[in-house]
Amino acid sequence: MPLSRIAVGMPGEASHPEALRAALAEFISMLIFVFAGQAHAFALIVAVSVGANISGGHVNPAVTFGALVGGHITLLRGILYWIAQLLGSVAACLLLKFATGGMETAAFSLSEGVSSSHAVVFEIVMTFGLVYTVYATAIDPKKGNLGTIAPITIGLIVGANILVGGAFEGASMNPAVSFGPAVVSWTWTNHWVYWLGPFIGAALAAIVYDTIFIGENNHEQLPTTADY
Amino acid sequence: MPLSRIAVGMPGEASHPEALRAALAEFISMLIFVFAGQAHAFALIVAVSVGANISGGHVNPAVTFGALVGGHITLLRGILYWIAQLLGSVAACLLLKFATGGMETAAFSLSEGVSSSHAVVFEIVMTFGLVYTVYATAIDPKKGNLGTIAPITIGLIVGANILVGGAFEGASMNPAVSFGPAVVSWTWTNHWVYWLGPFIGAALAAIVYDTIFIGENNHEQLPTTADY
Amino acid sequence: MPLSRIAVGMPGEASHPEALRAALAEFISMLIFVFAGQAHAFALIVAVSVGANISGGHVNPAVTFGALVGGHITLLRGILYWIAQLLGSVAACLLLKFATGGMETAAFSLSEGVSSSHAVVFEIVMTFGLVYTVYATAIDPKKGNLGTIAPITIGLIVGANILVGGAFEGASMNPAVSFGPAVVSWTWTNHWVYWLGPFIGAALAAIVYDTIFIGENNHEQLPTTADY
Amino acid sequence: MPLSRIAVGMPGEASHPEALRAALAEFISMLIFVFAGQAHAFALIVAVSVGANISGGHVNPAVTFGALVGGHITLLRGILYWIAQLLGSVAACLLLKFATGGMETAAFSLSEGVSSSHAVVFEIVMTFGLVYTVYATAIDPKKGNLGTIAPITIGLIVGANILVGGAFEGASMNPAVSFGPAVVSWTWTNHWVYWLGPFIGAALAAIVYDTIFIGENNHEQLPTTADY
Repeated sequence: MPLSRIAVGMPGEASHPEALRAALAEFISMLIFVFAGQAHAFALIVAVSVGANISGGHVNPAVTFGALVGGHITLLRGILYWIAQLLGSVAACLLLKFATGGMETAAFSLSEGVSSSHAVVFEIVMTFGLVYTVYATAIDPKKGNLGTIAPITIGLIVGANILVGGAFEGASMNPAVSFGPAVVSWTWTNHWVYWLGPFIGAALAAIVYDTIFIGENNHEQLPTTADY
Repeated sequence: MPLSRIAVGMPGEASHPEALRAALAEFISMLIFVFAGQAHAFALIVAVSVGANISGGHVNPAVTFGALVGGHITLLRGILYWIAQLLGSVAACLLLKFATGGMETAAFSLSEGVSSSHAVVFEIVMTFGLVYTVYATAIDPKKGNLGTIAPITIGLIVGANILVGGAFEGASMNPAVSFGPAVVSWTWTNHWVYWLGPFIGAALAAIVYDTIFIGENNHEQLPTTADY
Repeated sequence: MPLSRIAVGMPGEASHPEALRAALAEFISMLIFVFAGQAHAFALIVAVSVGANISGGHVNPAVTFGALVGGHITLLRGILYWIAQLLGSVAACLLLKFATGGMETAAFSLSEGVSSSHAVVFEIVMTFGLVYTVYATAIDPKKGNLGTIAPITIGLIVGANILVGGAFEGASMNPAVSFGPAVVSWTWTNHWVYWLGPFIGAALAAIVYDTIFIGENNHEQLPTTADY
Repeated sequence: MPLSRIAVGMPGEASHPEALRAALAEFISMLIFVFAGQAHAFALIVAVSVGANISGGHVNPAVTFGALVGGHITLLRGILYWIAQLLGSVAACLLLKFATGGMETAAFSLSEGVSSSHAVVFEIVMTFGLVYTVYATAIDPKKGNLGTIAPITIGLIVGANILVGGAFEGASMNPAVSFGPAVVSWTWTNHWVYWLGPFIGAALAAIVYDTIFIGENNHEQLPTTADY
């Protein structure tokens, strides 16, 4: 059962230089991503790439949650990542507002006639696809050569999903990407949709992939006291 | 003669956990692919990538047929894959219908003035190109570094073919991609075109590539009783 | 001096099974490429990939000429490639005409107000860029990891050049791509432009790259009697 | 402190054949890039690839400046690169003007209502993203497999940034790309923006990445007398 793999981590971990460096990498990756975010697929390929060797290149609180559910990151480090990701998104939106002389990035919203429950289903299925892709190409120890093009596949599944879901509810798959514009424009209508959907989809993908395709026996256990 | 290489497989094989896992991987890859399927090339790159290390990343009954003709997969495993692929496509169309509040994915159809025989020729040539690409970049033991970008090339040949054939007959090259929308919208006009064309094209590519470019002597024979 | 490197090859070479297989690979790659040729960049990435390990993935008489000038292919094998490339392009155009029920691929032509000398300059500079890219990412022994993405870079330089030169004179950079439509539509106006420009550009790139960046001493000499 | 890493280099270095070859590679890469420059992202992927193994594939004075600030290139070599890059851009614009029969590439300019200070902020943030990406995927010794797709990520961050900043101030991130059209059209209004912004952004990215993510101890010191 993957949920038993969730590791809290040691109290000192969150102030460990390596963990702080990784969180900073998430902050910068997210900033670059959201600033250039009108081209999600391309920008995400870059953001995942530049963070890959330092923080794992999550650049998405839902991906961090998926890694947490599968036991590939501790809770303390996950919280650091979440804070860094949200700050990075807000910083990018503020920079965009300043550079454009006041234009605001529009917050994510549901199109007319789309109910919040439909939007949640969209976010669940699309984020399932995204986190399943992260597991198959970046986390799975059997990934082999696929790891080389992992940032490309991760960017492309987001790009492909946006072409489907974008017209209905924005197709976020990423709470931080929704959070920045919501803060700067202070628009919180249906904002919960962009947290609930991605987190459910990410957890489902983590549980399915970790249980069935990685398996118990060949899973590299995270020591509960690891200086990870 | 490649056809003599077709292996049926052992009766127990189809219920072997590894075979079932591979079929599940085909199901999920197909679901992700068809759900995000308005961007075929990008979504297929992802779908091939996420399945590559578990099932071979066919995500297409015609590719599975091509692998069968060349003796790279047993018939029993092929049937499992076909079932999983068709179910994955139907599941994606149902999810799309639910998430969009009732919109149906349009079934593939021939444009006005395009006869079914012309459409079959299109599907044959395009699927020949696709399966030839699969052989050259993913199956051929001489593939080398090309294997790293195989999912990208496989996605791009489909994308390029759609730009040519899409306006005439939809450019499926993939019976499962045509099957899901046909079931959900219950539209079966000319549906046989999207099975006959791809299967002929796939078989031709498998026979040509396997006979001429892989060859008899350096072909890794599939033991007829292999626990493949 | 690179021109001294041009090797004629042994008389028996052109009928050697390996050379014929390579020529067939060029034929099929070219057929797939031109059939899907409305998306040049994407289709070329595929065509180069599927031929890379068998024939070198030239899929372009100008690239074959560039390889000949640098001594990386013998003249006899080059002639085989040229024949296969031209036949592949004609076959693709005929298949397209049949599948579409009679539509012809338009021959390359100069836009109004573009003189043939301007078009030749365009073809020279663009093909120089293409063949320089082939040398840097696929032929240079120092290429290293870049070889993995060579088909992508080769496809993209063609795609980028088409965006510049396409509106002026079609941006062929490839005599075979121009030859197929010219045969099927029997339109030969300015056809020489699409041979002269690419061959000059290819020769320039081969001489510059081979002399300056590969160099004399670390150049793997092609034995004049090699069973290449 | 990274600034202390700036190395001047030996007087003889700038006339060393290897340094001149590298500068020529920068010239040709820039020429190919700017000639095909209407498709920045694709053309830059190619330009970085073809220069990667010879000069490092900077193709951008700001990237060269970023490498200089981090101590990865000497000042003398940097000056050679800058000259080659500027000449390559001018040569490409002259070739374009000749090939098109007199059309000039438009110089970069600010859109109406965009102040020069806003444009500088845009250039700083976008070039920060670009040079950070260069460091993470191409310079960092920990880059691993990411180095294989480095030219792709570097091209995509430029492409993504252009989608954001292009409408406001052209989104250059590259003084040489702005310099060529400025010379040929002799338009120098706000030209300083495209030097100041990119150089500040590049220096910031170099200092952040080099100090925090590469670090002092595992930094390969450039010997001050190296025949680099």
